[in-house]
Amino acid sequence: MSTTTETAVTEEELAAGRRAYELDRKHVFHSWSAQKQITPMTVTRAEGSYVWDGEGRKLLDFSSQLVNTNIGHQHPKVVAAIQEQAGKLCTIAPQYVNDARSEAARLVSELTPGNLDTVFFTNGGADAIEHAIRMARLHTGRYKVLSGYRSYHGGTALAVNVTGDPRRIPNDYGTSGTVHFHIPFLYRTQFHAATQEEECQRALDHLEQLILLEGPGAFAALVLESIPGTAGIMVPPPGYLAGVRELTRKYGIMFIADEVMAGFGRSGKWFAVEHAEGVEPDLLTFAKGINSGYVPLGGVAISDEIAATFADTPYPGGLTYSGHPLACAAAVATINAMRDEGMVENAARLGTDVFGPGLAALAEKHPSVGEVRGTGAFWAIEFVKNRETREPLAPYGASSPAMNALIGASKERGLLPFANFNRFHVVPPLNITDEDARTGLAILDEVMEIADGYTEG
Amino acid sequence: MSTTTETAVTEEELAAGRRAYELDRKHVFHSWSAQKQITPMTVTRAEGSYVWDGEGRKLLDFSSQLVNTNIGHQHPKVVAAIQEQAGKLCTIAPQYVNDARSEAARLVSELTPGNLDTVFFTNGGADAIEHAIRMARLHTGRYKVLSGYRSYHGGTALAVNVTGDPRRIPNDYGTSGTVHFHIPFLYRTQFHAATQEEECQRALDHLEQLILLEGPGAFAALVLESIPGTAGIMVPPPGYLAGVRELTRKYGIMFIADEVMAGFGRSGKWFAVEHAEGVEPDLLTFAKGINSGYVPLGGVAISDEIAATFADTPYPGGLTYSGHPLACAAAVATINAMRDEGMVENAARLGTDVFGPGLAALAEKHPSVGEVRGTGAFWAIEFVKNRETREPLAPYGASSPAMNALIGASKERGLLPFANFNRFHVVPPLNITDEDARTGLAILDEVMEIADGYTEG
Repeated sequence: MSTTTETAVTEEELAAGRRAYELDRKHVFHSWSAQKQITPMTVTRAEGSYVWDGEGRKLLDFSSQLVNTNIGHQHPKVVAAIQEQAGKLCTIAPQYVNDARSEAARLVSELTPGNLDTVFFTNGGADAIEHAIRMARLHTGRYKVLSGYRSYHGGTALAVNVTGDPRRIPNDYGTSGTVHFHIPFLYRTQFHAATQEEECQRALDHLEQLILLEGPGAFAALVLESIPGTAGIMVPPPGYLAGVRELTRKYGIMFIADEVMAGFGRSGKWFAVEHAEGVEPDLLTFAKGINSGYVPLGGVAISDEIAATFADTPYPGGLTYSGHPLACAAAVATINAMRDEGMVENAARLGTDVFGPGLAALAEKHPSVGEVRGTGAFWAIEFVKNRETREPLAPYGASSPAMNALIGASKERGLLPFANFNRFHVVPPLNITDEDARTGLAILDEVMEIADGYTEG
Repeated sequence: MSTTTETAVTEEELAAGRRAYELDRKHVFHSWSAQKQITPMTVTRAEGSYVWDGEGRKLLDFSSQLVNTNIGHQHPKVVAAIQEQAGKLCTIAPQYVNDARSEAARLVSELTPGNLDTVFFTNGGADAIEHAIRMARLHTGRYKVLSGYRSYHGGTALAVNVTGDPRRIPNDYGTSGTVHFHIPFLYRTQFHAATQEEECQRALDHLEQLILLEGPGAFAALVLESIPGTAGIMVPPPGYLAGVRELTRKYGIMFIADEVMAGFGRSGKWFAVEHAEGVEPDLLTFAKGINSGYVPLGGVAISDEIAATFADTPYPGGLTYSGHPLACAAAVATINAMRDEGMVENAARLGTDVFGPGLAALAEKHPSVGEVRGTGAFWAIEFVKNRETREPLAPYGASSPAMNALIGASKERGLLPFANFNRFHVVPPLNITDEDARTGLAILDEVMEIADGYTEG
C-alpha cells in the first residue's frame, strides 16, 4: 500500500519507544489533556504520508499531525536544508541580518496576496495572532477585536480569547475587548437561511449590525480564518470574504486573515483567501505549512500601510527567536519543494478528482454522514445520529462513545484520523499519492459502516 | 586572539551577506524597532564566542546574542544532534510520545530544584510565562498576578503585561490584573536602605504590605526572575528569595521562578534560584539556554501538586510544536555537552576568578562606572554621569549619544556588547576562554576611557 521503500521497524526502535513511553508518562505534560486519562500513542518513525506506532505498525496519516505536515514527513529536500543550515548557522538574534531569514521573507511576500510586503516572524501561530492584533491596535488607535465563533486562533491568552471554540471557555476572564460574531455555516445556520446565498447575505448583515451596535469606530481588527480549520472546515460561500473586506474598509477595521491552518496550499491555493478573488487582507498570519512544522515557525505578513506606521515609531513587540535561521531555512526549502513538485496544484486536483467525488459518494451511501465539505486537501465529514434533525454524533465541545469507536476502528484499520467532536477531517499531506488517498477513503467507508450503526432509524 | 581555527570569510559569503541585507531592508520586520531608523548588522558566520559581520570582520560576542547562546555558536555536538534528529524525525504532534521529548523532559526534571517533575514544552519564554500563569490561575482558582518592576517576561500580551520594563508601556491596556512590586535594588533603592540587609527586609515588608492591600486571597501567582536579566542583573540579596517563598506560601500564591535568561548555567548554577538554598518554586519557566536557542524551545517545569490539578481535569492550553523533536534533541545534546564539559562550573569560576575581580578593578579605575554587579557569566555595568548623584548615562527606557558612542567604540574594537539604557551587560558564552574573556575586559577598559569623558567633574 505504501509508496516508500522502507525497512521493518527494528527491535532497537521498539525498545526506544517503550523507554520513551515510560519517561513520557513520568515527565511530559501534554497539551489540552487530563494527564492521567490519556494513553498517548508512541511514534517511532515517520515518512511521507505514514507514521509507525510503538508496536511497529504502519498508519496512513490522514491528519498531517495537527494539519501541519503539508509536504509529508521527512521530505528529503527539507531535511537536507535543515542539516546544511545547522552546519552553517543555527541561530542569530533578530536584530541582525541573516540570509535564510531574508530569503524566507522575500518568498512569503511574493506568495501572499496584495501588498503584504513585510514579514514579522514568530515562533508559531498563536504569537502571530497576538502580534497581528497588536499591530492593528497601534495602527488604528483602537482596542476592540471582532472574531468568529467556531474558530481557533491559538493558545496564548490573547489568541485563545479571540478563539471561538470550547478551548476559550476555561481561559476566559472577560477582559480582552473581543466580540464574537457568527460566520456563515449553512448546515447549522444561525440565520435560518435556506441557501448559501441567503446564508452569506444574512451573515454579512449580522456582522454589520454588530459593528454598529458595538460602535462603528470601536474595532481595531477583525480576525477570521479564511477557511475555519479545526472548527469544521466551513468553506465560506461566494461573496462572503469580499463582503467582510468591504465592511472592514467601510469602518476602518484591519482585516486579519488567519491562514495558520488553511494557508500554504492546504486549500488548493497558496492561501485560502485567494479563493475570493481580489480580496486583500491588511495582515495575514501563518505557521504550520510554512515549513510543515519541521522547525517551529510562524509569522505575520504586513501591508505597506501598516508597516509604514512602524517606520519611524518603534514596534513594541519582539521575541528572541524571531526569524530563526534554522526555521527560515526550512521554510525556504519547503516553499521551493512545494513549487518544484507542484504540491499546491496537486492539492487542488486531489480535491476535485479524488476527495470531492470520493467523499460525496460516501455521504450518499452512509446515513451517519450529515455533510461533507471542503476543498483541496482540506475536508470535513459531519457524523450525525439523524440526518433529519442533524443531531451530531458527539455534542459540541465533547466526545462520545460512538466517536471514540470510530477513531479506534480507523486506527485498527491503519488510518490515523483527525477527529474533533462529531467530525473527522480528511487533511493528509498535499503530496499524498492517489493510491494512498483512495486507500484512506476505503477505510473511511468501512468506518462509516460502524457509524451507521449509531444512527437512529 | 581567537581559539578557533577558521578560514577567512570568502567573497561569496560577503556577496550573500549583501543580498541578505538588501532583502532584509525590503521584507523583514524587526523586533522592538522603528523599521526605517535601523541599520542592522549582517552576520555572515558565527563560531564559539565569535561572529563575523557583513564586511568579514570578526567580533567577540560578549552578548551571547540575546543572552541565549550559553554554549557559544555552532557547538559541534549540538549541531551533530540536530542533523541526526533531522534525518530521523523532524516533527510529531504533541499528543504522541517521542523519545527526544521524553529524554529532554527527564533531564529538565532532574536538573530543576524541588519536585518539578513534569515539563510542559513551549516555543519560547513568553508562552512559557503565559502557560505558567494559566496553570497557577486554574490551580488556585484566583486571577491576579504579582510581578516585579524592572523585569522582562516576554512579548505576548499577557507576558508583556506582567513585564516591568518600558516594553510594557505601549502594550498596556490595564486589563490583566497584574500588580507590580519593587524588587530589591540597593544601588537605586526605593526603600531608602543603606545596606543589602536593610534593602532585603524592606523589600519583603513592601511585598507583604502590597499583598494585604490588594487582598490576601487575591493572587494566583507571583512571577519573578530569580536574577532579573535585561532589567539590570540585580542579584537578590541573601534571604530575599527565601522571604518571597515564605510569603507566597503564607498567602497561597504560586511562586513562578522565571529562569528564561538566568537559567541553564548563566549564573554559575544550573538555575539561579539555587543560589538561595532550599528555595523551591512551584513553577519554573525556561527557554534560551535550554538548547542555546539553536532550535526555538521554552517550557514550564511543574510541581507535583500543580500537575495533580490536571491529572483528571484537562489542562486548557497547548500548541502545535509543544515538545518539538528537533528542539528537544538539541536540548538533550546541549545539556549533555554542558555537563560533560563542565560549563556551569566554568561559568561560576569565570565569575569568581575573571569577571568579578576584572570588573571590580575597572569600576575602581573609571569614574563613569557607577556599579558593577553579577555572578557567573552574568554581569552588569552601570554607566553614570556622576558617581555621587548616580545619574545614569542614558535615561531609563532610552538611549543617549554617550551610550551610542560606547556601543560604536566597542564594535570598532571588535567587541559585540549587550547594551540596555545606561548599562552594558557582560554575558558571553559560559565556555568562553579566559583569554577571550580578558580580551573583552581590555576592550571595555578602553571604552570606559571614552565613557569617562562624559562624566561631570
